[in-house]
Amino acid sequence: MRASQFHLSTLKEAPSDAEVVSQQLMLRAGMIRKAAAGIYSYMPMGLRSIRKVETIIREEMNRAGAMELVMPLVQPAELWQETGRWDKMGPEMLRLKDRHERDFALQPTSEEVVTDIARQELKSYRQLPRNFYQIQTKFRDERRPRFGVMRGREFTMKDAYSFDRSEEAAGRSYELMFAAYTRIFDRLGLEYRAVAADTGAIGGDRSHEFQVIADTGEDAIVYCPGSGYAANIELAEAVSLLAGRGKARQALEKTPTPGKATCEDVAALLGVPLDTTVKSLVLATDDVDERGQPAGATIWLLLVRGDHALNEVKAGKLEGLKAGFRFATEAEIAEHFGCRPGYLGPIGLKKPVKIIADRTVADMADFICGANEADFHFTGVNWGRDLPEPDLVADIRNVVEGNPSPDGKGVLAIQRGIEVGHVFYLGTRYSKAMNATFLDEDGKPKHFEMGCYGIGVTRILGAAIEQNHDARGIIWPTAIAPFEVVICPVGWGKSEAVRDEAQKLYGALLAQGVDVILDDRDERPGVMFADWELIGVPHRVTIGDRGLKEGLVEHQGRRDAEAGKLAVADIAAHVLGMLGKA
Amino acid sequence: MRASQFHLSTLKEAPSDAEVVSQQLMLRAGMIRKAAAGIYSYMPMGLRSIRKVETIIREEMNRAGAMELVMPLVQPAELWQETGRWDKMGPEMLRLKDRHERDFALQPTSEEVVTDIARQELKSYRQLPRNFYQIQTKFRDERRPRFGVMRGREFTMKDAYSFDRSEEAAGRSYELMFAAYTRIFDRLGLEYRAVAADTGAIGGDRSHEFQVIADTGEDAIVYCPGSGYAANIELAEAVSLLAGRGKARQALEKTPTPGKATCEDVAALLGVPLDTTVKSLVLATDDVDERGQPAGATIWLLLVRGDHALNEVKAGKLEGLKAGFRFATEAEIAEHFGCRPGYLGPIGLKKPVKIIADRTVADMADFICGANEADFHFTGVNWGRDLPEPDLVADIRNVVEGNPSPDGKGVLAIQRGIEVGHVFYLGTRYSKAMNATFLDEDGKPKHFEMGCYGIGVTRILGAAIEQNHDARGIIWPTAIAPFEVVICPVGWGKSEAVRDEAQKLYGALLAQGVDVILDDRDERPGVMFADWELIGVPHRVTIGDRGLKEGLVEHQGRRDAEAGKLAVADIAAHVLGMLGKA
Repeated sequence: MRASQFHLSTLKEAPSDAEVVSQQLMLRAGMIRKAAAGIYSYMPMGLRSIRKVETIIREEMNRAGAMELVMPLVQPAELWQETGRWDKMGPEMLRLKDRHERDFALQPTSEEVVTDIARQELKSYRQLPRNFYQIQTKFRDERRPRFGVMRGREFTMKDAYSFDRSEEAAGRSYELMFAAYTRIFDRLGLEYRAVAADTGAIGGDRSHEFQVIADTGEDAIVYCPGSGYAANIELAEAVSLLAGRGKARQALEKTPTPGKATCEDVAALLGVPLDTTVKSLVLATDDVDERGQPAGATIWLLLVRGDHALNEVKAGKLEGLKAGFRFATEAEIAEHFGCRPGYLGPIGLKKPVKIIADRTVADMADFICGANEADFHFTGVNWGRDLPEPDLVADIRNVVEGNPSPDGKGVLAIQRGIEVGHVFYLGTRYSKAMNATFLDEDGKPKHFEMGCYGIGVTRILGAAIEQNHDARGIIWPTAIAPFEVVICPVGWGKSEAVRDEAQKLYGALLAQGVDVILDDRDERPGVMFADWELIGVPHRVTIGDRGLKEGLVEHQGRRDAEAGKLAVADIAAHVLGMLGKA
Repeated sequence: MRASQFHLSTLKEAPSDAEVVSQQLMLRAGMIRKAAAGIYSYMPMGLRSIRKVETIIREEMNRAGAMELVMPLVQPAELWQETGRWDKMGPEMLRLKDRHERDFALQPTSEEVVTDIARQELKSYRQLPRNFYQIQTKFRDERRPRFGVMRGREFTMKDAYSFDRSEEAAGRSYELMFAAYTRIFDRLGLEYRAVAADTGAIGGDRSHEFQVIADTGEDAIVYCPGSGYAANIELAEAVSLLAGRGKARQALEKTPTPGKATCEDVAALLGVPLDTTVKSLVLATDDVDERGQPAGATIWLLLVRGDHALNEVKAGKLEGLKAGFRFATEAEIAEHFGCRPGYLGPIGLKKPVKIIADRTVADMADFICGANEADFHFTGVNWGRDLPEPDLVADIRNVVEGNPSPDGKGVLAIQRGIEVGHVFYLGTRYSKAMNATFLDEDGKPKHFEMGCYGIGVTRILGAAIEQNHDARGIIWPTAIAPFEVVICPVGWGKSEAVRDEAQKLYGALLAQGVDVILDDRDERPGVMFADWELIGVPHRVTIGDRGLKEGLVEHQGRRDAEAGKLAVADIAAHVLGMLGKA
């Protein structure tokens, strides 16, 4: 490609509403243009990278035996009603009516349509396993679309769905996809981590997220450098930080803590470490009687150490809470604790409250907690002596950096990540809801065991940039750079020698299948360099009269501090070597 | 690809709602599956052909210097309001609201979005010409979606838009696209014709349709085998069939024609040729006064020869009618003609009527027309003698087979066609409406001269099948067949010799880049042959023990009446030769 024939369109400044660096750089590099909030046109420069991502995904999905198809974007409501998701999906699913007032949805995902295809197409166990995938436009009507392609409304996703005879076979399909994803992210050239993830309400018991590591990531991912353990923060298991419960040494004492409503303030006031305090969080669950009528609420007191944070996902899996909980109202708190928030604790309750202690809290002795009286805390609190044992001891907190790994093989570290892929074992949730069956070897109909597997194609571009950029612009991994090499001739319009050498190199690299662009715009070096550094092309070769007199040209890798000089005769081989195409 | 690894899914019968052969065969061959009326999933078999069509289009668009991008499917109403099309487009454009109640459209086409991109991106004449294209999902909410992918609601289209400095430059862009389309349809291997088309109300004066020839096509296309002339029926010029006006020989006579209200019946009753009769068609245009208030209607009598048909598109371009016309009401006809339809004519009118005669009618002498009295016609009617000359003589009829070509180089023939491509010169209609300008060489802003260029990607599949099929199934042109070659081993499960030869050939063809499928399902020959003939794979190689004993295998082209026998050693070279890959 010659730059004069390409649509190059860089901006000095990003629009003021661009919030994150990937969004700013993609706009400045002319890769995307905004059409509406969360809706972008993919410009020629951006589309080149998107196509490379798609090709890598497609090749690895095909290699794993998955079958590509394309399902409709506009999907009939009837299928979504079969699974109940027509009502359950929030406003993220954009609903619309056609001219005959029939209901449709713009696909946010395609479990329903693919299950409908499977129940028509897959009649026999002999056709299984089967994995259908598509690389297709999705629409999710985010309340606050932002961060460019990172959380857009219209975006491209690869979604795959596996159909199996048995849970065991579904496990093999899951492993196959996990391996394919590993190859995909390896080939994309991104630093990433596959982490165990919560399966939430969707059912099934196996789920992994593929997270691209970036300081700006929205997700916290937990891993143990000494072992293979990795999980997202919702799932990562927090063990007790104490080796069993310590002995009571202090007496229970009610201590004035006027105006000190947080553990931090109380610890500071009393001059004790924060990890001697216990935080009280009050949840409520709404009860119903036998006829399904409201029957008051159960109040729950959850205790975590003062320096820890409640993990609501973990809490939401506990017996009694898993049907759904909410934070208690001020009135409920006053009724049960006789006190306003900030001074709550497990001692001296007005009405029955279920007490759940985090594992670490259950092992604490001589701890500090609210006294259920404004401006007072108890110190020297001990389980068994000052209050009964908790109703339940459970892991209800987020792990923090330095916590022991749950596999006992070291301590945990935490990184920020951007979720770009997800593999998920679905079980029979959809096949049962839609009565999608095949005839098994015994001649009996059986529901498909399913899995689903997503990759955010356009999101990968944003994540790659969040991970790889500097003050001058994007630094693309070679595999998904819009161009692998740019040739910058200095004095294109003036020097025949420069033009000749530039065109010779251009031809030589093209002939070897290199994705090379020749900057024949006759711009000054400063303009060319700024454009291509912003766009993030991995390799730049600069050819000028001065160097040519000595038979030299310059090569600069996008991450290199400065350019290296090379003999004209060697440059093509050198570049091919750098690209692994020698 | 091995058939055991592929999703093969043929049906014995097409669903009963499949109306046309391409729809029936695509469903039976497992290429598409219906999700809702006019909305299909493209199954793995169909997607293979779609991707091949897309690749050919993309290669030729790139070769012509067009830049690929992807514009959003969900487009903000504001852009459509700028051109007034938000209100003008009918219910085919599906409108929807997002969660914030903002208006959007599902793109039926993208003139507005691309013009918005151009006015932001193309600032200078130095950036022109520029041609942006996308291969993307479109949605048109057809009232009666039918014929499978031929008139679906959700479909894939390639749409391109050119931006130029001047009308002359836009003409060059148009020619460039015309040439690219010619290469595309040549490469697709379809019999097609580029025909001049009407530009309608959209403005501009140049337009060609690319029509795939098929007896089942909805469009009539007119061409002159002796010259390059070709146009669609709306546009094809009809000349007078008479060499000037003949002499009056008969006297005007009012003749009883009781109950004979059509030209055919009158000619039969009187025992004269149909081409001595003249048909009367009554149109009306609604007038407005200076203040834009309704001011009655003007009535128009259009006269075409009894064996000809009115061409409403041509009529709609005439002075007085081009602002829009309707057929006159029975009341208006009674008021102006004093008679009911069936016996109308230009003689003895009750109130003034504008008379437009087709060119042939204006040259007729001694003709027959209604007498404006029920059950009577005039015979021996002559212009000038029996009635004044018409107010206007114009081409207002459809040409018919055998008419002289308007270029004087022979006679016209008519074929049926399926429109699969369209090139269109738009002028400044959109750039003016959206104030999209660039700075010209003189430093002054100027509106872009635009063209638009569409190809119905998924429709091409339907058109290809309408053109190429037989009782056994589809006959794909090699370039867009889902597979180029199928190897059918007879006795796969039993004969090691058969397996060995089949796998050897499979490997040899794969190595040469042939898109080959090996049918390793261990099915009987009848099942295999029926499947692959239905699917329409161009070449089949059958390998069986009986032939191998003599060192022979069979090759059968999809159009061949019977298979030919070839030496095992020659088969790979033979197939490569047939595919032009030798």
